[in-house]
Amino acid sequence: MSKNGTPWIQTVQLDEPRLKDNTADTERLVQALTPRLNSPDICIDLDLLKTLPSILRQAQFNLRCVLFKEQHHWVLTDILDAKDPRLCAGLAVDLGTTRVVLRLLDLATGKYLAESVFDNPQESIGPDVLSRIHFSEKEDGLKHLNDLIISGLNSRIMDLCTSQNLQPENIYAMAVAGNTTMTHLLMGLDPRWIIREPYIPVVNKPGVIKAEELGLRVNPRARLLIFPNIGSYFGGDLIAGVLFSKIYQSQQTSILVDVGTNAEVVLGNKNWLIACAGAAGPALEGGVTRMGTTAGPGVIDQIAVDPDSHTFKIHTIDDLPPTGICGSGVIDLAAQLFLSGMIDVRGKLLPAVCGTAIKKIDGLSHLVVVPAEASATGADLTISQADLDSLIRSKAAMYTILETITESVNMKLLELETFYVAGTFGSFINPESAIAIGMLPDLPRDRYQTLGNSSLGGATLALQSDAYHDEIYQIRERITYLELNVNQEFMNRFSAAKFLPHTNPSLFPTVKHSLPR
Amino acid sequence: MSKNGTPWIQTVQLDEPRLKDNTADTERLVQALTPRLNSPDICIDLDLLKTLPSILRQAQFNLRCVLFKEQHHWVLTDILDAKDPRLCAGLAVDLGTTRVVLRLLDLATGKYLAESVFDNPQESIGPDVLSRIHFSEKEDGLKHLNDLIISGLNSRIMDLCTSQNLQPENIYAMAVAGNTTMTHLLMGLDPRWIIREPYIPVVNKPGVIKAEELGLRVNPRARLLIFPNIGSYFGGDLIAGVLFSKIYQSQQTSILVDVGTNAEVVLGNKNWLIACAGAAGPALEGGVTRMGTTAGPGVIDQIAVDPDSHTFKIHTIDDLPPTGICGSGVIDLAAQLFLSGMIDVRGKLLPAVCGTAIKKIDGLSHLVVVPAEASATGADLTISQADLDSLIRSKAAMYTILETITESVNMKLLELETFYVAGTFGSFINPESAIAIGMLPDLPRDRYQTLGNSSLGGATLALQSDAYHDEIYQIRERITYLELNVNQEFMNRFSAAKFLPHTNPSLFPTVKHSLPR
Repeated sequence: MSKNGTPWIQTVQLDEPRLKDNTADTERLVQALTPRLNSPDICIDLDLLKTLPSILRQAQFNLRCVLFKEQHHWVLTDILDAKDPRLCAGLAVDLGTTRVVLRLLDLATGKYLAESVFDNPQESIGPDVLSRIHFSEKEDGLKHLNDLIISGLNSRIMDLCTSQNLQPENIYAMAVAGNTTMTHLLMGLDPRWIIREPYIPVVNKPGVIKAEELGLRVNPRARLLIFPNIGSYFGGDLIAGVLFSKIYQSQQTSILVDVGTNAEVVLGNKNWLIACAGAAGPALEGGVTRMGTTAGPGVIDQIAVDPDSHTFKIHTIDDLPPTGICGSGVIDLAAQLFLSGMIDVRGKLLPAVCGTAIKKIDGLSHLVVVPAEASATGADLTISQADLDSLIRSKAAMYTILETITESVNMKLLELETFYVAGTFGSFINPESAIAIGMLPDLPRDRYQTLGNSSLGGATLALQSDAYHDEIYQIRERITYLELNVNQEFMNRFSAAKFLPHTNPSLFPTVKHSLPR
Repeated sequence: MSKNGTPWIQTVQLDEPRLKDNTADTERLVQALTPRLNSPDICIDLDLLKTLPSILRQAQFNLRCVLFKEQHHWVLTDILDAKDPRLCAGLAVDLGTTRVVLRLLDLATGKYLAESVFDNPQESIGPDVLSRIHFSEKEDGLKHLNDLIISGLNSRIMDLCTSQNLQPENIYAMAVAGNTTMTHLLMGLDPRWIIREPYIPVVNKPGVIKAEELGLRVNPRARLLIFPNIGSYFGGDLIAGVLFSKIYQSQQTSILVDVGTNAEVVLGNKNWLIACAGAAGPALEGGVTRMGTTAGPGVIDQIAVDPDSHTFKIHTIDDLPPTGICGSGVIDLAAQLFLSGMIDVRGKLLPAVCGTAIKKIDGLSHLVVVPAEASATGADLTISQADLDSLIRSKAAMYTILETITESVNMKLLELETFYVAGTFGSFINPESAIAIGMLPDLPRDRYQTLGNSSLGGATLALQSDAYHDEIYQIRERITYLELNVNQEFMNRFSAAKFLPHTNPSLFPTVKHSLPR
């Protein structure tokens, strides 16, 4: 346990009952725990009360207690013989729309035991929040979506436990960070008002519930903390990210950006936090460019252009034959095309430079990145002019969002002390490329820090110390949500950002290219 | 609602969500209720969250909320359209070893709707706590006992609801007051340590639980407050009695006595409370004297002796032919026998006075109270010398307990300002008779007050105002439990009390009898 937290596992030796000290079993235990927990408010489920007298006596009143924190009280999730060596595990969950990541940890030490990643089984219904919400409105649609994620989790939990020689009953606590829609679907809550003006979730602060109530097969008394959301478009995954990044504790002003289909941004320091979210356009994730895909084996994640020959040097995940290109690869590609003069400041393919690499397909210009004979698919992997146009809009939207939130507090992007890039996608972005196309500001490179899966990181913290629980809600209360008004000023900024790297090149002093403006 | 309580039923008109006010449905409702409840801590079960968005919109955000209090927070048990006229009911339960009494009331007004009394179905296992605890130790014994009381309650709840044109789902709150063993059996908690030194219940403060968890068929979100106990021999029924009697609020010192097989006594005022419980002997309840029985139709509950003819004038419940005599009838009988000189100061039948009314049966003297031809059973209803001896011991035990607790605070019994007699049995006792035999102290008769079913009365209060909830626990904390040491002093007092009315007649100045000492 870090952060002055209270250990979840408490070993206590109770005084044995006597005629002069005939407090009931439950209150005897509660009295022994109270000074450790700094609270007399300890809840015990009825089924545990039923076994309590025999456990106490079998263990000769020498006990290992498994605890968890609900917002204003503690829950005793199990009472073991102090000599019972069983491992008490926690499970942190990053509940993504696309992917779900599980991390098993030891509640006693906070140490990681194992991880598991799987595609959100709701993908079979639709790739995004919108399609799933629409599906949820069909008869039994919500139930089906809920079943998919619960049975998906149960199946992976079982595998994870088996790999660690544990039973699901060993899992006593869970923490789940996901966007507002994913947490609604996990709880079986009607998400329909999330996407309809004025965009109202059923609940902002789901709090702590019994995992069993959701049908999760872990210890029947296990509790599950669901990260709160700020609204329909700012979910618990972001709150978890803020917790993990620690920007809310820092004297310096930092920015945290979770880049995906939505750009979710939090700016601030220990005194204030401001957040916004906006559609950064679809170009930054897979399924967009026809060659685009989400990161996975064989997917191009790095790309370089030889400045003289204008040929491509690619790197694929696991070094397999290329199957497509992921968002971070697209950014690399666009940066390289721009820096090598193959596209102009508007992102247009320049036939004079690209030469025979340009093919017309269905009347549209495509640049062949990997010819059919070298690709895993047997077809050319190309990027079209439409893909590039889409990327330009996305990067312009991202930059505009960053500029707008920063200027809303009278700061300049270049004044940011630390720029945290979060999310799986964020981990792969090469800041150099993102800066080259003007998607991210031209900060000294050492101010960029990738956080990795900050949502999972935050969920993990919630299982490592109860001290973080209050902070989760404090972060939520402290964040001012900035509604991005797509007004004339926003549109002016967006138009200025639609050039590579920007209409105002003085904002990108380190981006060196040889193209005429 | 009395006592500055917070109404359980709250009608609120929420502001409709807007873009500038896009708080989630749940938090919108919680924010509207918070100022009414003086607490932001309002729990909502997951299944209610699932229906919440549609209820809010169907009702156009104009709602009737059904609330209940748990120790440190509120629970929202239902959300209705403000126009929904349904009655929201509460159910107070006196969970007796012998009898169970249900009282249905309107949670909005606190008014009584109906009552129902039934024998505790666990009577089929055994008449008393001891026999049931022994049974609970057999395989599936506890489960069987638990099933008996739960299904008994469910069946009567259904009848009670039907009589009022309600559904069990209309019952949103319950409060149960019972002795420690009965509440353990209700919850399915192992009672075995209650009767074994050092006499340890599983729990002293069960708090508020979901009625559904016990298998009770009321509203699935209904909450059930179980009165706390002080220990194995001082149960929630007594705490409820103290609450109902209000002795804990009075400047004057009063005593509260629940007379049964056990004499349970609380003495005190608004500054202090002291309690004890002791076996008053079996003679005060039915099943003891062979003619004895618990109160019911045909049972003799009042009796007088003609001082000249020494014949009996009896009153039976419902004026039916006599079937037996209940505890209060036995007290009347003994008092009359004593005052008319048919028994002596030691309670021995005097053949010279009783004449032919004395019969020898199996070598034992019996006094015929109702001859065979007048009884409903076709046999003589008699009281034996052994019955009378047993009664003397019981009344002596009762008086000794009263004297001991009172002297423990350096008071005399005759200084008591109010003497509350509680319990069904207490309601029937004629203080004049009880004083005549020296069971109760010779106070001015207007200081005696019968409370009726104070356990049910206390349970009812808990459903009439949340303000009483804290008081229940305050009463529990304030009571000092006096362990009755059966030491030499106790035995001396007991011996002195084994005379009619007492060895020291100056303690009973109003008891006039003509017998020689």
